[in-house]
Amino acid sequence: MTAYQQLEARKKRVSALNNAMGILQWDQQTMMPEGAAPARAAMLAELSVMVHEMETGSELSDLIDEAESGAAQLDAWQRANLREIRHQFIHANAVPSDLVEKLVMAESDAHMTWRVARPNNDFSSLAPKLDTLFELKREEATIKAAIMGVTPYEAMLDNYDPGRREPQVDRIFEDLENFLPDFLQQVMAKQAAAPRPLIPQGPFPLERQRELSHAIMQVLGFPFERGRLDTAHHPFSGGADGDVRITTRYNEADFMHSLMAVIHETGHALYEDGRPPEWLGQPVGNSRGMTLHESQSLLLEMQAARSEEFIRFLVPTIARVLGGEGPAWTPDNFLRIYRKVEPGLIRVFADEVTYPLHVILRYKLEKAIIANELATRDLPGAWNELMEQLLGIRPPNDTDGVMQDVHWPEGIFGYFPTYSLGAMAAAQIFAAAQKDNSDILPGLGRGDLAPLFTWLDRHIRSQGCLYMPDELIEKATGSGLDTAAFKAGIRARYLD
Amino acid sequence: MTAYQQLEARKKRVSALNNAMGILQWDQQTMMPEGAAPARAAMLAELSVMVHEMETGSELSDLIDEAESGAAQLDAWQRANLREIRHQFIHANAVPSDLVEKLVMAESDAHMTWRVARPNNDFSSLAPKLDTLFELKREEATIKAAIMGVTPYEAMLDNYDPGRREPQVDRIFEDLENFLPDFLQQVMAKQAAAPRPLIPQGPFPLERQRELSHAIMQVLGFPFERGRLDTAHHPFSGGADGDVRITTRYNEADFMHSLMAVIHETGHALYEDGRPPEWLGQPVGNSRGMTLHESQSLLLEMQAARSEEFIRFLVPTIARVLGGEGPAWTPDNFLRIYRKVEPGLIRVFADEVTYPLHVILRYKLEKAIIANELATRDLPGAWNELMEQLLGIRPPNDTDGVMQDVHWPEGIFGYFPTYSLGAMAAAQIFAAAQKDNSDILPGLGRGDLAPLFTWLDRHIRSQGCLYMPDELIEKATGSGLDTAAFKAGIRARYLD
Repeated sequence: MTAYQQLEARKKRVSALNNAMGILQWDQQTMMPEGAAPARAAMLAELSVMVHEMETGSELSDLIDEAESGAAQLDAWQRANLREIRHQFIHANAVPSDLVEKLVMAESDAHMTWRVARPNNDFSSLAPKLDTLFELKREEATIKAAIMGVTPYEAMLDNYDPGRREPQVDRIFEDLENFLPDFLQQVMAKQAAAPRPLIPQGPFPLERQRELSHAIMQVLGFPFERGRLDTAHHPFSGGADGDVRITTRYNEADFMHSLMAVIHETGHALYEDGRPPEWLGQPVGNSRGMTLHESQSLLLEMQAARSEEFIRFLVPTIARVLGGEGPAWTPDNFLRIYRKVEPGLIRVFADEVTYPLHVILRYKLEKAIIANELATRDLPGAWNELMEQLLGIRPPNDTDGVMQDVHWPEGIFGYFPTYSLGAMAAAQIFAAAQKDNSDILPGLGRGDLAPLFTWLDRHIRSQGCLYMPDELIEKATGSGLDTAAFKAGIRARYLD
Repeated sequence: MTAYQQLEARKKRVSALNNAMGILQWDQQTMMPEGAAPARAAMLAELSVMVHEMETGSELSDLIDEAESGAAQLDAWQRANLREIRHQFIHANAVPSDLVEKLVMAESDAHMTWRVARPNNDFSSLAPKLDTLFELKREEATIKAAIMGVTPYEAMLDNYDPGRREPQVDRIFEDLENFLPDFLQQVMAKQAAAPRPLIPQGPFPLERQRELSHAIMQVLGFPFERGRLDTAHHPFSGGADGDVRITTRYNEADFMHSLMAVIHETGHALYEDGRPPEWLGQPVGNSRGMTLHESQSLLLEMQAARSEEFIRFLVPTIARVLGGEGPAWTPDNFLRIYRKVEPGLIRVFADEVTYPLHVILRYKLEKAIIANELATRDLPGAWNELMEQLLGIRPPNDTDGVMQDVHWPEGIFGYFPTYSLGAMAAAQIFAAAQKDNSDILPGLGRGDLAPLFTWLDRHIRSQGCLYMPDELIEKATGSGLDTAAFKAGIRARYLD
């Protein structure tokens, strides 16, 4: 076996463990009896250590060196696979194992504290845990930055969106920060003059909502022969190669959030399911980072499913399954509901216009944290200031302010930007697809996703990690990632 | 770390993988979308190879040698753990890896052929696959026998019931073979003179049956906080340490089989759940082989749940949940149904009187196969002869004859005896428990399992693999495994 072949064999095994953990984590959120939680945590920790051992070690480093010196013998997919293997190696090996261990413990400690502190609006109990964790994250970022030749914050970003660099993110976010606040005022003024949306009144039995979810997933081509929908506390998309599992949660009083969550997670699942089958189990067969992943869920949720064409197609099905009748159940009213724009405190409930402002706030703060320019005790104040500045509202407490997200207490830095970069990419990809095929929007009006999906399969889903994220976007859309399509899209949707 | 401590660390990791596979196999049978089957099979194969690698290797052999030479420093549980580690090492390492590979392929080949051949009554297509497989099993048995200093068939038995030897099994089965046929005739004559059981008429909605299963599992103390009940094609008990998962299947026309299957699997699950928590993840914390495991399921299903006391307690609940009324829904009628004795072709539907005869038939034949005294082509004839001799009936085809069980096509030899040795152990343990605590039967009459379970926890479940199976039985019951309690029990139940 060549060095490259040995690497493939090693990655195949790592992939078996990661796939196993994917199903075990799904089970943990959906099926596992509560009392099994400690045993499951221990099991997953042991499997993670095994993966970490396989991803590190000097013999792996030697193998990669050797494979790279023979890269001329490899085809394009193999070379890309080798590049991804190197990338994974860098992230797995950069940090010494005693720091890894301290990070795991500090994350667990901060996370557990957050779960109690948030509902009690008790930032002061969380602050010392965050202090410890942030210090360790800075250490991690600094070590990685030196090895990778990037800034510490870029080393964090690179984990979720390989190759992503600060100047580009700064440029995109500055552009949005200049554009969105005024735009928001215009949209709100316009919507204030229009009829108010009527909220359909429940209760909506969970069984009917489940049926509705399945019906819509069927329209969206969710591969039920290789996937499932279940309920969990938080909607997510997970599972394993060839076995995509998404979740949602139902509320008897409100079906509308769950419905869009299902569409969003279906977008993630279709991306996973559409990866090149011959490369599953190898790094190059993975999805192309979190910006691209979010682009696929948002393309479905925000671009396709909120299009006038699709809403007109969809509402009769919704009304039929839920037995809805009257003025709240018209496509025009659903358009008003699903396009309502309004600043709010909570990111996960934000509309597509205000969402990037939530992300920009977090981006500014987490860069300052990694740069050690913001003391933990000043974080709530800085948060509230920025909320007022960007969205014009001020959180009445930290529960719905600085403590609303799990990311920082879990030690996740550099992830937030991908939500909005994903939104930019979604708009840009959707626009490019429509330019190539004028039947995409009419297709949505017929509940026929094939024109859109044929394009996405070809240009995005089947490409795995053959290219770097920005290369992939540029090849698919003809230009680098920017805000043009997003801004044009929301202008057309909300002001024209 | 001492050699012994290193072994514990290694076993802890193996256990994490085995537990992961336990949940993944449960998922495969209950939740997994069908199209994920090939990916799941590949995942499980890769994890199995990893376990095999950890269970073999000369450095492991050295560690065990070293730990054994320091055994004087260990306490009783640690010494038993080391004995079990040695036992696992012998079974994992005896067979050269090329033979293991051939066995895996021959088993898969025979199993796949059996799935088609059985419904088509086509033994001739299965025979050559069995021929190949049996030859490899003989080779495996011979190699293991030489290493272990036992007969080839004992080497197979030892896999499922460590320390079990042929003379004892022969003695027990000869005793039953002498006793049961005449006894069977007497029971049938007596039952022919009694009122015929009335079969409750359905349909019984699956939702109600599910509710009934949960209600009965609640009575039986199934630990729902660390376990689940789901549906699968075949009832089984599985899951992981601290997470016991059982399944059943429902039939709208007949709730009675499913109900007893649930009780049987609950018996298995309670054994798993009752193992010593401080030793979970180590071999000594495992359940004590298949004879003991079956003793725990049969003790619940055959001894406790078919007792007059428990049936009188249970029937009102059944009638209430299923809405049953009239003469078919009385405890007396349920006793007649659940105690009906009649020779039949199919082992899995057999009553407790005829069941051992099904097992004796298989025991005789599989010993002859391993000893190479029976040609595969003569197997159907030998089967039919023995059926006639032992049970007085002759299969009209091989579908319901020699091809009814999956065991041989899966390469499983030495497992069948444990079903009936388990039945003997169940009767013996139940009798011993009642001798120690006279409130056990009255407790069953109140739906109070605590008197029985307190005894089982103390004498069986909490003992893990501290002792060898026969030692455990002798310590718990005061005598070696034999047929006395079983025969006395069925005499009292069916003739008195």
